[in-house]
Amino acid sequence: MSSGFTAYLDHCQARINQFLLSQLSTPQPRLERLYAAMRYSVVNGGKRVRPLLCYASCEALGGNQDAADPAAGAVELIHAYSLIHDDLPAMDDDDLRRGQPTCHRAFDEATAILAGDGLQALAFDWLSQLGTWQPATRLQMVQTLARSAGPQGMVGGQAIDLGAVGEKIDQTTLELMHRHKTGALISASIQLGALASERASSEQLQTLEVYADCIGLAFQVQDDILDIESETSVLGKQQGADIARDKPTYPALLGLAGAHQLAQQLRDQAVAALQPLGDNAIQLKQLADYIVQRRF
Amino acid sequence: MSSGFTAYLDHCQARINQFLLSQLSTPQPRLERLYAAMRYSVVNGGKRVRPLLCYASCEALGGNQDAADPAAGAVELIHAYSLIHDDLPAMDDDDLRRGQPTCHRAFDEATAILAGDGLQALAFDWLSQLGTWQPATRLQMVQTLARSAGPQGMVGGQAIDLGAVGEKIDQTTLELMHRHKTGALISASIQLGALASERASSEQLQTLEVYADCIGLAFQVQDDILDIESETSVLGKQQGADIARDKPTYPALLGLAGAHQLAQQLRDQAVAALQPLGDNAIQLKQLADYIVQRRF
Repeated sequence: MSSGFTAYLDHCQARINQFLLSQLSTPQPRLERLYAAMRYSVVNGGKRVRPLLCYASCEALGGNQDAADPAAGAVELIHAYSLIHDDLPAMDDDDLRRGQPTCHRAFDEATAILAGDGLQALAFDWLSQLGTWQPATRLQMVQTLARSAGPQGMVGGQAIDLGAVGEKIDQTTLELMHRHKTGALISASIQLGALASERASSEQLQTLEVYADCIGLAFQVQDDILDIESETSVLGKQQGADIARDKPTYPALLGLAGAHQLAQQLRDQAVAALQPLGDNAIQLKQLADYIVQRRF
Repeated sequence: MSSGFTAYLDHCQARINQFLLSQLSTPQPRLERLYAAMRYSVVNGGKRVRPLLCYASCEALGGNQDAADPAAGAVELIHAYSLIHDDLPAMDDDDLRRGQPTCHRAFDEATAILAGDGLQALAFDWLSQLGTWQPATRLQMVQTLARSAGPQGMVGGQAIDLGAVGEKIDQTTLELMHRHKTGALISASIQLGALASERASSEQLQTLEVYADCIGLAFQVQDDILDIESETSVLGKQQGADIARDKPTYPALLGLAGAHQLAQQLRDQAVAALQPLGDNAIQLKQLADYIVQRRF
């Protein structure tokens, strides 16, 4: 990674962390525990891939980061809520997330369920109330985020995943799962960033959708690879956890080398798709590299 | 209840049930179990108080029911999701809901968590995509629903409730809890119905807010009363369940007679508030009666 890009990552991560915290202060003493659980889960050191994509996409269309803050925040709220619920005993039953106790471990299970529920509602609250966008822009953001987060998006992907544990599935089904489970929200992050610029043409939104489809899948392939290659201390969760659960993964299906190759191909397709956007898309290009090169 | 009003209830209930089902067909075979769980929870014979209020509020401003369907559906989705998550083992741990096995009993816990999550996202999806409202109207609906469903509304109320179990709380705190827990969504149902008519003035919205505040609380007082007075077979859940859990209730605080008196006072205030709306508010008036007279 170039030092310029590292600085960009650091800058965006600090920016979104500050924005998230500024919007999550406790409004009422009796809501303290709920808000503490939401803050705990939202600001515990994630990579902020979705906000980064949102900012970079806004910038690729000539917008500035100020315009994208609430959109970047909203996609991260959806991501954070999904992690809280994923980690619950009835789901993945994880004790660690990013090296810290999961929300239901740090608080309790009921609070974790409510914190997740609350974060999802807040995402739509923010999109509809914060920022300075036109009503039509906001509405398109809500449409995009709701579809990508719901049963035809992320939640649907979790359900497909749940139904596929222990099952031998083919690459088509694995792709179907990941396009729902992670791809939809990654795509929404990029679309929301573009919309936040208030200057996205429908051609540009389509261009970004191709890019998003490719890096969404690349992200998941790399996640599967890291589940095998990384040490627990770096990954912040149990290494080999997917394999232990007999979850379908790309390395299991294509071998480790095949998975690496697929990730690289998807990265190349993503970068090629950015061509019409010219130099402004430099951050999106570097993010594509980052996604397949990251070690955690 | 007049036979005319009974017919109105039946009509609205049939209407919303049909609308909900028509929008919840499985889009993809691998999503069948998730959608089945969502349908199961949404169409299992609830009273549909929130959709009823939404329709009646739309009609009180001279709108027709066609205009209100997606709004009535959206508030019911939020209500249905909250019941699924409330019933989970980590929350109220209920086996029965409306006389049927709860979602996590009929399916499994992970599916129940996801079904709830999916229904919440769908509510915002529907508001932003279905119906024929102006963008500004939709946006106001999303704002209203997101705020009322989130940590400063329903989810916050659940969190306050959770923190108050076994605690001796006063009437002010009990009201704070219920205004969040049930009042906010009831109020949103009424506001969304008014907005759906696309002819609500800000004065009318304020009038309806006073009405909503009163019946929201009346609804909860009556719920607490029914927890004591009704038999399990009528109520569809364990009678005395709140008392058994040492949950704060109005009868515990005011006595049974005091609670009845409060419900009646709130009903009277609600009806008085409707005065500026004239004859069109007849259904809202009858709903206020229904809410404090219902036996389940």
